[in-house]
Amino acid sequence: MISVRPAQPGDGAALVQMAHALAVSHGTANTFALTADGLEHDLFRPDAVIGALLALVDGVPAGSAVWHRSYSTNRGREVMYLEDLSVLEPFRRRGVARALVQAAAKVAVARGYPAMFWNMMDWNDGARILYAALGADIEPGYAVCRLKDEALRRVAQ
Amino acid sequence: MISVRPAQPGDGAALVQMAHALAVSHGTANTFALTADGLEHDLFRPDAVIGALLALVDGVPAGSAVWHRSYSTNRGREVMYLEDLSVLEPFRRRGVARALVQAAAKVAVARGYPAMFWNMMDWNDGARILYAALGADIEPGYAVCRLKDEALRRVAQ
Repeated sequence: MISVRPAQPGDGAALVQMAHALAVSHGTANTFALTADGLEHDLFRPDAVIGALLALVDGVPAGSAVWHRSYSTNRGREVMYLEDLSVLEPFRRRGVARALVQAAAKVAVARGYPAMFWNMMDWNDGARILYAALGADIEPGYAVCRLKDEALRRVAQ
Repeated sequence: MISVRPAQPGDGAALVQMAHALAVSHGTANTFALTADGLEHDLFRPDAVIGALLALVDGVPAGSAVWHRSYSTNRGREVMYLEDLSVLEPFRRRGVARALVQAAAKVAVARGYPAMFWNMMDWNDGARILYAALGADIEPGYAVCRLKDEALRRVAQ
């Protein structure tokens, strides 16, 4: 039994666990600094730019989606950017990711957003099949560029 | 002579012109709905999620960068997402894009952000050379997924 609900105070530790699992799988555990208190502060402040959804399987935290407010200079309106979609290993291939995307879409529509978007790895055929089935446009051929820490400060000088 | 400054009230029309040029080049002019008034409203509201920089060549608007507040679930901190980087055709290959990225990096550092990130088209060798020279990590192999309008509403039902 899969259910998805907005994150609540107290969910920070479960959300951090899932973000950490993503960091390990992305090879970025060395810079991981998210804490339960910090995340809850950023989620529940009045001017929050992020939101989170928690998926439960039989009441146990199984996955999460973290999204943030974005903006389309094409539409001239706020849109949703889905930053992370995470399903813990033991709960995969049961529809948790689909339930999370559907819940995120509900949030987007409730906020009056005309669109949501996210990045996926081009080789992730399982994700591609799911997203295509949901009606997403999938545009390959992108690279993600990041300026970080010392490199960012050098450019800013 | 290239200069870059934060967008000010009154810059809306120039920024819309540049966003429209991007929409034409991306084949998305059919959904283009950004207006000068709407953009200025969204840029200068107290809880803005976006910011814009305007590049001038000899005082003439030549390019722009629109960024928004994003969030890294790895760092647990707000970061900058560079949504659009636009240089009008007559002003290309003069260093305008570089000046805009540098100005965006200054904003990111001033806001205490540890990182900025953006998407580029994988085939854009000119952009790749510039971004690599600036010290950016460039990770290929992404696809951008978008759920829009009717498809978004269907998923949300």
